Amino acid sequence: MAQTVAHKLIESHLKSGDMTPGAEIALGMDQTLTQDATGTLVMLELEAMKLDRVKTELSCQYVDHNLIQEDNKNPDDHLFLQSACERFGAYFSQPGNGISHAVHMERFGRPGKTLLGSDSHTPAGGSMGMLAIGAGGLEVALAMAGQPFYTKMPKVWGVKLTGQLPDWVSAKDVVLEMLRRHGVKGGSGTIIEYYGPGLDNLEAMDRHVIANMGAELGATTTVFPADAEIRRFLRSQGREDEYVELVADAGAEYDLHDEIDMATLEPLIAKPTSPGNVVPVREIAGTDLYQSYIGSSANPGYRDFAVTAEMIRGQTAAKGVSFDVNPSSRAMLETLARDGLLGPLIASGARLHQAGCNGCIGMGQAPAYGRNSLRTTPRNFPGRSGTKEDSVFLCSPETAVASALKGEITDARTLDMDYPQVQNPSEPVINDHMLEEPLPLDEARQVEIVKGPNIASLPDFEAFPDSFEMPVLLKVGDNISTDEIMRAGAEVLPFRSNIPAIAEFVYDVVDETYPTRAKETGDHAIIGGENYGQGSSREHAAIAPRYLGLRAVIAKSYARIHWQNLVNFGILPLSFADGANLDALAQGTTLSFNGLHQALKNGGSITAQASDGTEIECTHALSERQVEVLLAGGLINWMREDEPVEA
Amino acid sequence: MAQTVAHKLIESHLKSGDMTPGAEIALGMDQTLTQDATGTLVMLELEAMKLDRVKTELSCQYVDHNLIQEDNKNPDDHLFLQSACERFGAYFSQPGNGISHAVHMERFGRPGKTLLGSDSHTPAGGSMGMLAIGAGGLEVALAMAGQPFYTKMPKVWGVKLTGQLPDWVSAKDVVLEMLRRHGVKGGSGTIIEYYGPGLDNLEAMDRHVIANMGAELGATTTVFPADAEIRRFLRSQGREDEYVELVADAGAEYDLHDEIDMATLEPLIAKPTSPGNVVPVREIAGTDLYQSYIGSSANPGYRDFAVTAEMIRGQTAAKGVSFDVNPSSRAMLETLARDGLLGPLIASGARLHQAGCNGCIGMGQAPAYGRNSLRTTPRNFPGRSGTKEDSVFLCSPETAVASALKGEITDARTLDMDYPQVQNPSEPVINDHMLEEPLPLDEARQVEIVKGPNIASLPDFEAFPDSFEMPVLLKVGDNISTDEIMRAGAEVLPFRSNIPAIAEFVYDVVDETYPTRAKETGDHAIIGGENYGQGSSREHAAIAPRYLGLRAVIAKSYARIHWQNLVNFGILPLSFADGANLDALAQGTTLSFNGLHQALKNGGSITAQASDGTEIECTHALSERQVEVLLAGGLINWMREDEPVEA
Repeated sequence: MAQTVAHKLIESHLKSGDMTPGAEIALGMDQTLTQDATGTLVMLELEAMKLDRVKTELSCQYVDHNLIQEDNKNPDDHLFLQSACERFGAYFSQPGNGISHAVHMERFGRPGKTLLGSDSHTPAGGSMGMLAIGAGGLEVALAMAGQPFYTKMPKVWGVKLTGQLPDWVSAKDVVLEMLRRHGVKGGSGTIIEYYGPGLDNLEAMDRHVIANMGAELGATTTVFPADAEIRRFLRSQGREDEYVELVADAGAEYDLHDEIDMATLEPLIAKPTSPGNVVPVREIAGTDLYQSYIGSSANPGYRDFAVTAEMIRGQTAAKGVSFDVNPSSRAMLETLARDGLLGPLIASGARLHQAGCNGCIGMGQAPAYGRNSLRTTPRNFPGRSGTKEDSVFLCSPETAVASALKGEITDARTLDMDYPQVQNPSEPVINDHMLEEPLPLDEARQVEIVKGPNIASLPDFEAFPDSFEMPVLLKVGDNISTDEIMRAGAEVLPFRSNIPAIAEFVYDVVDETYPTRAKETGDHAIIGGENYGQGSSREHAAIAPRYLGLRAVIAKSYARIHWQNLVNFGILPLSFADGANLDALAQGTTLSFNGLHQALKNGGSITAQASDGTEIECTHALSERQVEVLLAGGLINWMREDEPVEA
Repeated sequence: MAQTVAHKLIESHLKSGDMTPGAEIALGMDQTLTQDATGTLVMLELEAMKLDRVKTELSCQYVDHNLIQEDNKNPDDHLFLQSACERFGAYFSQPGNGISHAVHMERFGRPGKTLLGSDSHTPAGGSMGMLAIGAGGLEVALAMAGQPFYTKMPKVWGVKLTGQLPDWVSAKDVVLEMLRRHGVKGGSGTIIEYYGPGLDNLEAMDRHVIANMGAELGATTTVFPADAEIRRFLRSQGREDEYVELVADAGAEYDLHDEIDMATLEPLIAKPTSPGNVVPVREIAGTDLYQSYIGSSANPGYRDFAVTAEMIRGQTAAKGVSFDVNPSSRAMLETLARDGLLGPLIASGARLHQAGCNGCIGMGQAPAYGRNSLRTTPRNFPGRSGTKEDSVFLCSPETAVASALKGEITDARTLDMDYPQVQNPSEPVINDHMLEEPLPLDEARQVEIVKGPNIASLPDFEAFPDSFEMPVLLKVGDNISTDEIMRAGAEVLPFRSNIPAIAEFVYDVVDETYPTRAKETGDHAIIGGENYGQGSSREHAAIAPRYLGLRAVIAKSYARIHWQNLVNFGILPLSFADGANLDALAQGTTLSFNGLHQALKNGGSITAQASDGTEIECTHALSERQVEVLLAGGLINWMREDEPVEA
């Protein structure tokens, strides 16, 4: 049967399940990518699993997020990650080497391979015929340990590209057009696959722009074929031998359809505060500007910086505009220097930052209060810039530079300027000295993992007991979010590598006595209402309460990801068989469970004896595999039994 | 009489006093320099004084310290400063334009002029025959308002330089030799004046290195003559017409003497945690290294970066070394790009940061815990890097690069390499578009000063009453420091432009109920022991308690600067006529003062009636002028009366 690129990638990596949209499939993962903000927990998880060596073809840990070193915490994390990579056999990309997505594509991406990354913009790798998916840290840790990745088979959404982009319109406008048409949930449950004659007019890094920001459409991922352009790209990276052609078969059928005639596009811009809030630039031309920001994984290509340099050559940013240039990688910066493109940028007044994510994830470069910031980054959710109630617009480099020159939001087509004709260098600088190779196994086994004072090994959790007597330590209402269970923010985030320290903040917005009471009490339960654990997928909202002694939650209903995280960290998520029981069950009641092992294996109902004499009927929805995981005390213990240290 | 350069500079600006060492002198100030960390308060003070326009020949406000924009506070400060400069007729150097000291020397420094700066490294300007002195914010504000600067006439310390520096030894080693010989208090009460034939071998920016770090010797300032080299420097900056020769007269006599034969120097390094802890590099060669850091106002010259680039050209920093390059100015970065020197730096793995102070003042680039950092910066006081218990070494660029290449502290003379012969460009890039000129007076008067939500105008304080009845709200012991009165740190510093907000932290390390009690009570007194207000000169330790209602302090004795700050902000500093009274006086006692105005003018004793019936005899040491200032409610009110809004 004629197949799409997406189907070929899935079929060649299918470990279980069938390719019916909505059905669970298990996919083997060839490569993984982690970044420093999520990678520290991944490495602690690998350590807790007693992993000897990663089982992927290639795993690379990047340091691109937390490059601001206001004290020792971030640099300590960097050294921890470096030593963990040495121990486990992963590549380590040093701080300053660049953004994971750009560097990975240039140095490691391979058509036909799968990539799981603990960063939501991992789909950027789809630009070169990979199946590249973003996931939570523990899922990436499991992939590094050789486990398949479970997901629901998406629909494949074919988007036919035709025509050639007009002057002053570039790849960013293509994905902004998709967001204009379909919004931020438009790609949910799909893989977006681009095809058609228009591809001939999009170079590899243009496709990266579109695949990267496909995450903003809510898609599982985006894929492009591996074609002659990808061959050229790999050749320029000295890796032509890693090229394999991967294109859709003639007559392949897509589950969903769309088409974009690129010749009809115009410069677009996403207004605050959603990437889906897209309008033509001309509609808001003349709007005031505080900042124009170039770079990020959503515009990381040579052409993005070269067009910027050529547009601004011999001119300066308008008075009052902070013109921030964020190189995507060290190699890119070196290429720009070699090609004489850095000088014009610096002369124009650019604030040239180190290679990395920087302001795109709120690490510096926040705009002033009430002022507008134009960025080529992928997201403008409220506050992401670091400034509360910020006002961030997303656009192409062309629009950002035109606006920097004029000091107001400007449609670049209105400039009195010829569109710069930029050629990709046939030989970009290749310099891998900041990309440390895995150590040989015997050397790796000698490595001591380096832990600064703020990095604590994951606590050991025992297996799940057969019986419990424990108090209800907290009773909460409906729609409790993971932000309430374990808040984010500058006060808490620095402790992400230190479960005992971060546990002091658990539930503190709801009941600040909870952490102290929990530590005094030990084993305990929490009672919740509907939609318990909604919001962010952060694993700390399960592992930190577990550290404090949480063994069971009884709620009316659960948000899916948090429910899974509870099981993964050895906490039993029960539902009330009869919702009416909830109101009768007070905080402070003691619950007794007996014969839990058999009851869980049997499925169906579980009964707790309350200290007031009532019986609480509960149910659970765990699969057989999940019961095993829970009884082992969580996924890390389960993996440890499953995969002991090996020779 | 034959005069030194220092005496000529002082005599030509002497407004009152005589030039006997130790006597108070008043100096007219031609120029001022402020940076953003101190400048916001300066601008609020000018606003409170109702200043119409600066009265100096030139005032420039730089933004170089708080370039990390984690939220809107720093960028809001930048916009505030920009608009205040427009209003008051000062130059504004935009964020990203570079470090104040380097930019000021290049674009504004003039031989024979005086410069007062709210930054302790302001003496760097002495490199070109200026009298350049660092001072507190309010003193700089007064200079901007046309008032003279009061200080004690220093001794002039002549240091004769002979000989030529050997290969691999540079200007930093000269000032490190001074620190090795004399320590961090060795220059106290002096102006260090360099002279002699060795000067012919030190270019202008080398002299900057020595004058800048003269602050670490505790000197009032450092001066060099304005000679042919300064003429060359000004010519390269397109400002030869601003050159005037300023050299010591033949036979001029110095109060103190020293001599350095530069040919005998070797690479030196200051070990943690003092710039005075100097040893030869060879003595600690082989020590581990986490970071090598190039840049800062203590090594800002073209040659410093060019030597770095030539040493590392074609090589890379050793594995595990964070090689941080901090350009001193945007113009310097542009010159390096033009001259092909950026490429080798980037290729070597440099983390290239934006032009500014950056890690030198703990704004990023902190080292990892327990790891050694080598820096070309001027200071290594404990924790200044951002990392508590850090380990920072100070050295020349040559030593820093040699060590980066080897991955351990290295005497550059042991490298198998020819010493790079670097020539200063005859035409460095001059590009002033980020240096905004003062507005014409009529336009300036139309400017509204822009205040983000975290910037509050200085509170108005009323004149000092003739009688008081107020409680003793706090009684503290000996040696209370300004860090205890008003602590620094990341939690508090962001509120430096917001007196009501920062006042919430007053004395919180001693008694956290004080701010609340003070706000409830209003007018109150504090009782202190010996050496009250020691430590940092920060003015917030006076103005914030005054905001909370502090009207009088009675202490056994005072630290000099805080005593002066109390008067400047309208708080009466009294001493116990009889120390024995202190112990009898309890917190909570109410004190009554009557007829204060006349008593203060009379000098001598002041008597308070305590609520327990006792009489407390006090004295004060205010000068006539200080009594006037106090009665007006502080220096700002006094200036306002003295200098009303003018046409």
